[in-house]
Amino acid sequence: MAEKKWVYKFGGGSAEGNAKMKNLLGSKGANLAEMALLGIPVPPGFTITTEMCAVYYQTGGEFPPELEKQVKEAMAFVEKEMGAKFGDPSNPLLVSVRSGAAISMPGMMDTVLNLGLNDQTVVGLAKRTGNERFAWDSYRRFVQMYGDVVLGLKPEKKDEIDPFEAIIDRLKEEKGYKYDTDMTVEDLKYLVGEFKKLIKQRKGIDFPQDPWEQLWGAIRAVFRSWNNERAITYRRLNKIPDDLGTAVNVQAMVFGNMGDDSATGVAFTRDPATGEKVFYGEYLVNAQGEDVVAGIRTPQPINKETKTEPDQVTLEEVMPEAYKTLVEIRDKLERHYKEMQDIEFTIQKGRLWMLQTRTGKRTAKAAIKIAVDMVKEGLIDKKTAIMRVSPEQLDQLLHPMFDPKAKKQVIAKGLPASPGAASGRVVFHADDAEEWNRRGEKVILVRLETSPEDVGGMHAAQGVLTARGGMTSHAAVVARGMGKTCVVGCGAIDVDYTKRQFTVGDLVVKEGDWISIDGSTGEVMLGQVPTVEPQLTGEFAELMSWVDEVRRLGVRTNADTPRDAQVARNFGAEGIGLCRTEHMFFEGDRIKAMREMILAEDETGRRKALDKLLPYQKQDFIGIFRVMEGLPVTIRLLDPPLHEFLPQEEDAQREMAEEMGVSVEKVKARVTALHELNPMLGHRGCRLGIAYPEITEMQARAIFEAACELAKEGVKVVPEVMVPLVGTLGEFVNQKEIIDRVAKETMEKYGVKVNYLVGTMIEVPRAAITADEIAKEAQFFSFGTNDLTQMTFGYSRDDVGKFLPMYIEKGILKEDPFQVLDQEGVGQLVKMGVERGRATRPDLKIGICGEHGGEPSSVEFCHRVGMNYVSCSPYRVPIARLAAAQAVIKEEQAK
Amino acid sequence: MAEKKWVYKFGGGSAEGNAKMKNLLGSKGANLAEMALLGIPVPPGFTITTEMCAVYYQTGGEFPPELEKQVKEAMAFVEKEMGAKFGDPSNPLLVSVRSGAAISMPGMMDTVLNLGLNDQTVVGLAKRTGNERFAWDSYRRFVQMYGDVVLGLKPEKKDEIDPFEAIIDRLKEEKGYKYDTDMTVEDLKYLVGEFKKLIKQRKGIDFPQDPWEQLWGAIRAVFRSWNNERAITYRRLNKIPDDLGTAVNVQAMVFGNMGDDSATGVAFTRDPATGEKVFYGEYLVNAQGEDVVAGIRTPQPINKETKTEPDQVTLEEVMPEAYKTLVEIRDKLERHYKEMQDIEFTIQKGRLWMLQTRTGKRTAKAAIKIAVDMVKEGLIDKKTAIMRVSPEQLDQLLHPMFDPKAKKQVIAKGLPASPGAASGRVVFHADDAEEWNRRGEKVILVRLETSPEDVGGMHAAQGVLTARGGMTSHAAVVARGMGKTCVVGCGAIDVDYTKRQFTVGDLVVKEGDWISIDGSTGEVMLGQVPTVEPQLTGEFAELMSWVDEVRRLGVRTNADTPRDAQVARNFGAEGIGLCRTEHMFFEGDRIKAMREMILAEDETGRRKALDKLLPYQKQDFIGIFRVMEGLPVTIRLLDPPLHEFLPQEEDAQREMAEEMGVSVEKVKARVTALHELNPMLGHRGCRLGIAYPEITEMQARAIFEAACELAKEGVKVVPEVMVPLVGTLGEFVNQKEIIDRVAKETMEKYGVKVNYLVGTMIEVPRAAITADEIAKEAQFFSFGTNDLTQMTFGYSRDDVGKFLPMYIEKGILKEDPFQVLDQEGVGQLVKMGVERGRATRPDLKIGICGEHGGEPSSVEFCHRVGMNYVSCSPYRVPIARLAAAQAVIKEEQAK
Repeated sequence: MAEKKWVYKFGGGSAEGNAKMKNLLGSKGANLAEMALLGIPVPPGFTITTEMCAVYYQTGGEFPPELEKQVKEAMAFVEKEMGAKFGDPSNPLLVSVRSGAAISMPGMMDTVLNLGLNDQTVVGLAKRTGNERFAWDSYRRFVQMYGDVVLGLKPEKKDEIDPFEAIIDRLKEEKGYKYDTDMTVEDLKYLVGEFKKLIKQRKGIDFPQDPWEQLWGAIRAVFRSWNNERAITYRRLNKIPDDLGTAVNVQAMVFGNMGDDSATGVAFTRDPATGEKVFYGEYLVNAQGEDVVAGIRTPQPINKETKTEPDQVTLEEVMPEAYKTLVEIRDKLERHYKEMQDIEFTIQKGRLWMLQTRTGKRTAKAAIKIAVDMVKEGLIDKKTAIMRVSPEQLDQLLHPMFDPKAKKQVIAKGLPASPGAASGRVVFHADDAEEWNRRGEKVILVRLETSPEDVGGMHAAQGVLTARGGMTSHAAVVARGMGKTCVVGCGAIDVDYTKRQFTVGDLVVKEGDWISIDGSTGEVMLGQVPTVEPQLTGEFAELMSWVDEVRRLGVRTNADTPRDAQVARNFGAEGIGLCRTEHMFFEGDRIKAMREMILAEDETGRRKALDKLLPYQKQDFIGIFRVMEGLPVTIRLLDPPLHEFLPQEEDAQREMAEEMGVSVEKVKARVTALHELNPMLGHRGCRLGIAYPEITEMQARAIFEAACELAKEGVKVVPEVMVPLVGTLGEFVNQKEIIDRVAKETMEKYGVKVNYLVGTMIEVPRAAITADEIAKEAQFFSFGTNDLTQMTFGYSRDDVGKFLPMYIEKGILKEDPFQVLDQEGVGQLVKMGVERGRATRPDLKIGICGEHGGEPSSVEFCHRVGMNYVSCSPYRVPIARLAAAQAVIKEEQAK
Repeated sequence: MAEKKWVYKFGGGSAEGNAKMKNLLGSKGANLAEMALLGIPVPPGFTITTEMCAVYYQTGGEFPPELEKQVKEAMAFVEKEMGAKFGDPSNPLLVSVRSGAAISMPGMMDTVLNLGLNDQTVVGLAKRTGNERFAWDSYRRFVQMYGDVVLGLKPEKKDEIDPFEAIIDRLKEEKGYKYDTDMTVEDLKYLVGEFKKLIKQRKGIDFPQDPWEQLWGAIRAVFRSWNNERAITYRRLNKIPDDLGTAVNVQAMVFGNMGDDSATGVAFTRDPATGEKVFYGEYLVNAQGEDVVAGIRTPQPINKETKTEPDQVTLEEVMPEAYKTLVEIRDKLERHYKEMQDIEFTIQKGRLWMLQTRTGKRTAKAAIKIAVDMVKEGLIDKKTAIMRVSPEQLDQLLHPMFDPKAKKQVIAKGLPASPGAASGRVVFHADDAEEWNRRGEKVILVRLETSPEDVGGMHAAQGVLTARGGMTSHAAVVARGMGKTCVVGCGAIDVDYTKRQFTVGDLVVKEGDWISIDGSTGEVMLGQVPTVEPQLTGEFAELMSWVDEVRRLGVRTNADTPRDAQVARNFGAEGIGLCRTEHMFFEGDRIKAMREMILAEDETGRRKALDKLLPYQKQDFIGIFRVMEGLPVTIRLLDPPLHEFLPQEEDAQREMAEEMGVSVEKVKARVTALHELNPMLGHRGCRLGIAYPEITEMQARAIFEAACELAKEGVKVVPEVMVPLVGTLGEFVNQKEIIDRVAKETMEKYGVKVNYLVGTMIEVPRAAITADEIAKEAQFFSFGTNDLTQMTFGYSRDDVGKFLPMYIEKGILKEDPFQVLDQEGVGQLVKMGVERGRATRPDLKIGICGEHGGEPSSVEFCHRVGMNYVSCSPYRVPIARLAAAQAVIKEEQAK
């Protein structure tokens, strides 16, 4: 049997691995091999595979004997390539030992540099380089790094100082030095001695002098660091599987700190902020990589094109030869990878070495520009371009942002519930928000939490800030629906309604004070932070046109007002998938009529009140139909329980009683009668329309009168009436009969014909299960995955904050199922609903209108199960379009 | 093509139909045909099929021409048999026209008697019978009945008087008559005249003199009456399909009112109350059928054996010949039908005619005795006997009943939530119930509604009465679980906690007053009504032993206390399928420790409080394990949200704060923090055990310490630990690890091994959908169909009262899904759960522990989907056993 290959060599224009072997060699190792194959100068080295990482954990740290053999052999190759010898006192080879997983986890795992130095080789290095200071500084750095990483002297707590740094600080204080560079060779020698003493004292061992012992220690440390706390957290946050493991890269050291003919730098092959095709990077003369990051010296731009200050000195100018080579390599890499690269390089005594290349991170704006440009350059095709932009990232582009250059005084941080940047004066009540807004003030509505009574105020405000609630609280959901900036669950603020102020520690913010909130970061800032408007550049429009060519899934929007509908249409929405009618009942006089209906003793009383609501509702629909001319508009009938329309607090009840001319006892009695222990599972949805058919009748009348009036004007309207919370065919039939009757009556009255559909939400598990029955009568389905998720999991969205974060932390759930559709559970019901519905009615139109309709992985799922469209909040329409196109491409790729 | 047969003749020892043709001929018609075939004297006649009823409704009342032809032909047959002619002035044949559906709907549809009389034939009849009074009385009755039924003069409202009766009353008043029999021939003639005038005046038509016109009118009226309001309601209540239709029976009239040699009566072939094999019936001399029911004359027993008063005159004595024939017919019918019969007969001038035979209704006690006796008599086999007893009916036998002979003063009526008869003194608070109980008082706990805090008081009370809530309210569910008599939703009582009294209208019932409540009827009575204990006779035990031979489904019980467990074991329970542990935390000092745990700031504090609960919980389990020795006991870990253990009212909160030595603010703060908008979907079930693993640990420790201690004594214990509200495999694994660890530790500590299982409730839709995943770790499933129904429908049990009654009334739902498992929706999830679970783990033990486990049709469903057992409240165990046996037999019959 052939010996298992654990080690892959690279360097000198050849390599045993290549870029495709990322799972085995890690991203860094695979790319180093690839660069070597491309003839790009990389310091020779070798990669120990990720498979060895698994072995390391399985055996509890034991390595198989073949590994030693293969490492020795690989080291001999490196020695030969470099013309130096590992541990040779006169001509020592030094190596770096670095981690490298298949998916990059920058800075999360450990690295050891300058390995191979000891009391002998440091002398040899000094001689050979003719630079004693460099040799001892390298040795000092190595002992420190080895002590920290391999021997574990690095403090665990963030705010503790590194014990080696403490020694340096002490020395610098004694000698009155300001910079590390002030230290003399003698100082460095002294430090090496002190460092060794510290190691002996803390660990009871001598600092290892044997380079091979050093090497194996470093390899072990790198494997170990795969499971350090930082790395585990990073993987959880970035959804990286725990069993991938890291590879270990052992590579000959090259030095950018060997004098003024040496340098080190990082660069992007294009501008990662704007996407412009300019070579963009920074470098430092006579420095090692860590110095670039350390921030003591200011890195300089690599070329004249990207100079921002006249006194900057570019690489192009100081090392024109090396720069020229670097530009050639940049072009070669881009042509080869057909992707913008993030590269690291070192120039040792005028010679350029490449240390790393990887796909570069970029802003959404840059991602789009680069993708579109590369298509034009003939590097990639349109579908590849589409796959290059992350749908989630698009969100950045679609909302106004705070000016990145502005000064900010952040006073608290909550959950980023609905993206955007908003500034306004603080108000604490929805009424105030509306009133201040009417007199032209910009306001931020600050509440402990919001309720449906506050919707009017939320509309009027620039943004909403709440002290309680999670990403799916009322405030968060409604705000996202409106595209309104919102920060929720900001526990640090202490709201006092009576004093009309909130406090953060000692800071008091009063009604009328200016604050700014960032819905993308959750930051709450004092004062008015300036914003910049989103620029939907030509490339954005171009990319989206390709997206629309590719995708098959329709994208509609959830919109309740003509304004929202217009925003969504501008963003490319192809109709309204969910128009909630209840929000229409909260504004101004409407709530009064609504309450009158709820207080009515009998049907006659209810009809009287409903007659007052009819003209409002009709006007709402006229507005929306007009904006959506020619596109379908799905209108959901009244859904929330009636108690949501009554005030819950005594003062407000008294006020309402006075306003309506009834006794406060009557109001209270009605509130009590309507009280439910679990309103989510109570008297709402079509259960209302069945109990009070006159409500359904009024709503149907408003819809069809609006439709008929516009139809007579020649406006094309496509109403789709949607019955909420259906669980049985009988419920649907009951409501459909009313809707069809009113439609017929109204069309006869107006003498015009309007094509319409009557369908239902599928949001109760039973509806999905009996979809074959319901499809007998329903002309379309729209999956309400918010409620479906609630009932399938048995999680109340309003209460889930008490245990869902814990579930995610413990790994019981990978994601919040209210944000990302639970394909394993809820998704099976959705699939069942689609299949059973279509079994009865093959041409059944099916969509989704839950929050998931704008979440990329959920959109992909909707595409896969064969829905006709997704519907999402206006600001997520482009995201859903992109995700829908990517779903098609992924499907093609999987074939 | 042969002509479609619409009419089936019978009489004179032959018939065209038979007893098997119930769907076509209706029950009455089929049995009349069958009796004719058996040679039993039935007045000749014919049946128009139920198919014609469908035609009648399809055509809007038109009959096909063949019908007239076939009716004429059949009438000729009757004329021949009776030696009289329909419409012949000198020798007229009179007929009755009666409804008759496949399933008997007694009294719901219409009947016309004496049809064929008119101004001529009445004279002929008088002459022929030599009884002018009889003839005119028959005519009078006919015109009245025809006017009411065919011409529609019967008032629609119940409290309005029949216009014909009004005329009779006026006449009797004028003449000073007391009884109808006081009327002279002239009076009867006068009435016929007045009746005709009334018809002319109200309907504008003359009373039809043509017998054929009369006949067709009556046939139409009978078909029409299939869809009268009473009949529709009756069908809904008795779950009879609306499309069965009725047949029409036209039959020669025989008269029990032709003098003292004539009589009419009804009888049961065995005693319908006791099941004794005695011929049991009543008759009246010289009377028509309606007179027996009218109650003016007192019917007499038919034989000496059933005489209850010495002055009664039996048929056996006055008409021995006819009686002898009747006894022979009785024997013949029982031998033929192998079932107890309910018969109607008429003796016309000494000649016996049978008018009807049908399966007789009987009490549960009689049903069992008759079934068992018939097996012994060799009439039927054991399986037939098992099918003869309705499981629901058994309920009557299993609870104490009020003495049927006692006087009762009913003051109000609520919903019969949990059967039984209870008397006690009124208390209004759970604490009082416990305290009064301790001092030996019997109490009835009267509340607006109950909450988990009241469970101790409910236990202590004889029965529970609530003003609010439905059949599935907290009070109802808990009381049924306890087998405690309970009446809920008694809206007529007005409870005043502060005055410690309730009122019903003007009546005031104070704390300490005696009341009695009947959980089978919902009646609330003043005072102490005496009760009789249930007699589980020898026949009951015998039948149940056959039941156990036949059934394959196990039957366990839901029991939380040793007492309940014992009751259930006596009733034949084969284990505990659900032992809820939370009820154990409400009694005495336990609630204090529980509250201490909830108020604790951290894990240490919680552990301290839990340590106090451990010994109690352990003792509970020891008690239950002992009673259930050798049988499995499924223990569910803590399920309800923690706020249920804290008082919600301010006074109680203050009291609690004092008792615990903390500030009332702290108590309030905790109550507020624990408040949830939808507690049903909140922080409960395993979500608690995951958040506070120390709770699970304590419960597991109590279970295994109890089990180990008993095991060391040699008592066989079979614990099955059940994790509630699992929706994902991860949740289950989290809890199972704790349970397994504690089990191991405890068994090591005691040095004894106890076999146990760890499984889960399947009550969240997602658990059913992902059952294949969950079965990887779960060793058993128990379907919690209460919660599963809540979440699958999206109905909160606590709030469903607001719309569920309306849904049933409107026919949107056929039944309350919390009482009868919704096989179409929820049942599909159950089936999916069983199939997917067994796909992963073929020997997975599966049961059900929702309320449905004791409902017969649901038990049958559980059998069909292949569950191992059902679990129900102790008092329903025999019902479930019987239903399980019937499921097997039905399955065999369907093959």
